[in-house]
Amino acid sequence: MELHGQNLIGYGTSAARGETIPAVNPATGAAFGIPFHIATTEEVDRALELAESAFFAYRSLPVADRAAFLDRIAEELLELGDTLLERAHQETALPLARLTGERGRTVSQLRMFAEVVREGSWIQARIDRGQPDRQPAPRPDLRRMLIPLGPVVVFGAGNFPLAFSVPGGDTASALAAGCPVVVKAHPAHPGTSELAARAILWAAEATGMPEGVFSMLHGLKETGLAMVRHPKTQAVGFTGSLIGGRALFDAAHQREKPIPVYAEMGSINPVFVLPGALRARGEKIAEGLALSVTQGVGQFCTNPGLTIGLNDQALTPFIETLAERLSQTAPATMLYAGIREAYGRGIERLQQTEGVKQQTHPTTPADPALTQANAAIFTTDAQTFLQTHALSEEVFGPSSLLVVCGSPEEMEAVANGLEGQLTATIHGTPEDLRDYRGLVAVLETKAGRLIFNGFPTGVEVCAAMQHGGPYPATTDSRTTSVGTAAILRFARPVCYQDFPQEALPVELQDANAHGIWRLLDGEWTRQAL
Amino acid sequence: MELHGQNLIGYGTSAARGETIPAVNPATGAAFGIPFHIATTEEVDRALELAESAFFAYRSLPVADRAAFLDRIAEELLELGDTLLERAHQETALPLARLTGERGRTVSQLRMFAEVVREGSWIQARIDRGQPDRQPAPRPDLRRMLIPLGPVVVFGAGNFPLAFSVPGGDTASALAAGCPVVVKAHPAHPGTSELAARAILWAAEATGMPEGVFSMLHGLKETGLAMVRHPKTQAVGFTGSLIGGRALFDAAHQREKPIPVYAEMGSINPVFVLPGALRARGEKIAEGLALSVTQGVGQFCTNPGLTIGLNDQALTPFIETLAERLSQTAPATMLYAGIREAYGRGIERLQQTEGVKQQTHPTTPADPALTQANAAIFTTDAQTFLQTHALSEEVFGPSSLLVVCGSPEEMEAVANGLEGQLTATIHGTPEDLRDYRGLVAVLETKAGRLIFNGFPTGVEVCAAMQHGGPYPATTDSRTTSVGTAAILRFARPVCYQDFPQEALPVELQDANAHGIWRLLDGEWTRQAL
Repeated sequence: MELHGQNLIGYGTSAARGETIPAVNPATGAAFGIPFHIATTEEVDRALELAESAFFAYRSLPVADRAAFLDRIAEELLELGDTLLERAHQETALPLARLTGERGRTVSQLRMFAEVVREGSWIQARIDRGQPDRQPAPRPDLRRMLIPLGPVVVFGAGNFPLAFSVPGGDTASALAAGCPVVVKAHPAHPGTSELAARAILWAAEATGMPEGVFSMLHGLKETGLAMVRHPKTQAVGFTGSLIGGRALFDAAHQREKPIPVYAEMGSINPVFVLPGALRARGEKIAEGLALSVTQGVGQFCTNPGLTIGLNDQALTPFIETLAERLSQTAPATMLYAGIREAYGRGIERLQQTEGVKQQTHPTTPADPALTQANAAIFTTDAQTFLQTHALSEEVFGPSSLLVVCGSPEEMEAVANGLEGQLTATIHGTPEDLRDYRGLVAVLETKAGRLIFNGFPTGVEVCAAMQHGGPYPATTDSRTTSVGTAAILRFARPVCYQDFPQEALPVELQDANAHGIWRLLDGEWTRQAL
Repeated sequence: MELHGQNLIGYGTSAARGETIPAVNPATGAAFGIPFHIATTEEVDRALELAESAFFAYRSLPVADRAAFLDRIAEELLELGDTLLERAHQETALPLARLTGERGRTVSQLRMFAEVVREGSWIQARIDRGQPDRQPAPRPDLRRMLIPLGPVVVFGAGNFPLAFSVPGGDTASALAAGCPVVVKAHPAHPGTSELAARAILWAAEATGMPEGVFSMLHGLKETGLAMVRHPKTQAVGFTGSLIGGRALFDAAHQREKPIPVYAEMGSINPVFVLPGALRARGEKIAEGLALSVTQGVGQFCTNPGLTIGLNDQALTPFIETLAERLSQTAPATMLYAGIREAYGRGIERLQQTEGVKQQTHPTTPADPALTQANAAIFTTDAQTFLQTHALSEEVFGPSSLLVVCGSPEEMEAVANGLEGQLTATIHGTPEDLRDYRGLVAVLETKAGRLIFNGFPTGVEVCAAMQHGGPYPATTDSRTTSVGTAAILRFARPVCYQDFPQEALPVELQDANAHGIWRLLDGEWTRQAL
């Protein structure tokens, strides 16, 4: 399939500006194929005006139609076959096996949201029946449900070219909620983005969706800001850096009418290895940790960038195993030059910090020309860590800093000093958990997900998942960007007071034709009234 | 009972600064009694440090203890008896009967949240059981629930000296969620605030709450901003003006770590009177509307400041009845001089707008020295309304602007031009609803609550209530400040992955000891696993 390099606005294409973004293969450092046209302000405007004009028709569709659209996107993505995977591989250097897995997850997410929409309970119906005879005043009949917010701007993430990019979780959950979506393609995989966007648009046409339900624009920072500032935009989804996310957050809140920004900006995902676990199975934990640190060349939001242990005789072999595994890990190509450079700067900063020692000595040195990086583990003591704020900053890539604590109190002090995190992990025995109950209580206030005897990479997509956490992990700790609850970001409640049956949305009518769960006078039920 | 005029910080009192706020009786315009000490920056800091230090102990209490605290606050408020009501009457000029009703509502809200906490399902438990044998990778056991955010700053509202002030809905819902609260007292009823705060602190001491669970400070704008900017503050509740709410919103979002601000900033609450209803019972609607416009001297957030009707022969008697009722309404004292002056400016602006005509001629003119206001109704045509943005701005007080539309299309255009609203009301027959289906769809995108054949004043406190709406009605349309769902503003989800039973919060343990509703593998149940 031939790429065209244009912006996809409604059902048309547009390339009003000559300025372009090249596709670059990070494994060679070379640009290849056609370039991609940066959207103009007028193109941004057109995409969002079309989204707004599609909103009413789209949100009014029967839920089965919306679900069919999502299912069809999954099909069209699969239909692209190797074309999509190979292009993503060329643009990101992620291995084909990983990309195949990521496509599977992307397709599953779309189907999961199709099912969420079809099942229907996500709108959180609450019904409090009226009491016309109540004294001193009658109680009205009140029925409340979630409705979609309006056009949503989604920023494709660099590290998951499918699952968090154009057809990813933000797009799927916003479309599921009934919101048209305008995506800004990530400049590091523009061809993959075009392919995915075309699959979405084929699905939209095939299932009769209104024009404007989906558009995709190419661009850099200014394009993104223009999309966030556009008055028709009602919410923003983003996964990326703290600086990038904060810039969008600020722009959205400085608008005349502020809008929510769901920015997932990563974290250092501390892993606490408690003494009982360290003694019982330190080597196994070290091996698992090395795999988690290097998974996807360390380019996961949940990458464990910080490990905390007690100064114990079992810690020395733990560090040795970890250092050995990471030293032996073959250098690998990162997503793009900018990420590789930032990683290099982060490693240098650690190397130059007094009291911090590098424990890894790579068997094979990385080749910067191939955008490669080596894995690394550093050690420091708790006092140095607590006194050096820069050591709490994320180094995006395959490295971790191990903090050696002199006492359980110091360990808790390290936990207390942490910023907001997506995850916090504890390796322990049942006895450890009893001894370190205070640590768990601290970590609850720091992270969105607490993991016991596991590793933070690998985020299950389900109802109970929480992928989010206190700032700066995200800009809105009340929400998740993974799992079925992600749909709630793009909706708000509306209450209907004393409405006649026929004027109520079907979800709130007595008959409960869809058989959804509803909170009826305080009890959850699928029954009709 | 003697007032002391000091700030209430933890279980102590403090008056570090000489500068004070006087108590003023709006019905006489005169200051009376002791003055109230404006908090210093150090006092703000102390209150929030204490709140932070109380947070862990408070959130860890058994839910029964937290519920007992809320119930005890209700008791202590009642125990204050006429002292509280008379002080509130002196400071606000609201009639004793109204204040008695408002106290009843305040007490009911506290008891409702006690019951919400005791029942326990509000934490929205979601459990997805693990699948250890799943291929290619085991599925972890994931359990998610809401936990409190941390110290919350609440701004007492001027228009409800009890139900939305110190012991009001924001305080009750934040305390219910497990968050310590620091209130900034509204400067227009400082004595009422002190009495209510002392009742809360008696309840806290009597039920063994940690010091710092509640504090109250006096102050003006700078004090409020310092409280919002304090690094320990995790969320803000506010009811008041657009300018005030926006200033707090901006301050909160410019913090190094931004925090959510739930500001309810009022609206003009449009009332659409459709032709069938107008013909069938125009006079009755006019009478009800006149009562709604003048309720509480028009000082309700849901006051109907805009009425929309079709140019029909039934409209003339409707306007006449409305004008007559409002002209005959006795002038009444508003809450304080500042509100009265703003109302005066709003009325003048309407009087001076070309194309706008005042229909009321008050029988008894208001006396500005007694902070009095007359009710008023103005008329204009749809084109003037659509072309004059200032006509969409709230005039806080007992007035409404009636927009006469030439056609159903013009009526829908007026709806489309509206800003975000707390409520929108439709008076209609079943036929009207069918003919104006498009209007309902537009209003859904504009308001948090849609009322059929009723009036917006009177907000039921229950599970299905939605008191909130798109900006500028509130800063967060995804939330409500009235009803049980208000508690959700002060909590965020945490997910526990593969935790052993004994390390899980009781709400997520297999046994479900509290018998709460949990979403277990996609189905709501009160059963144990």
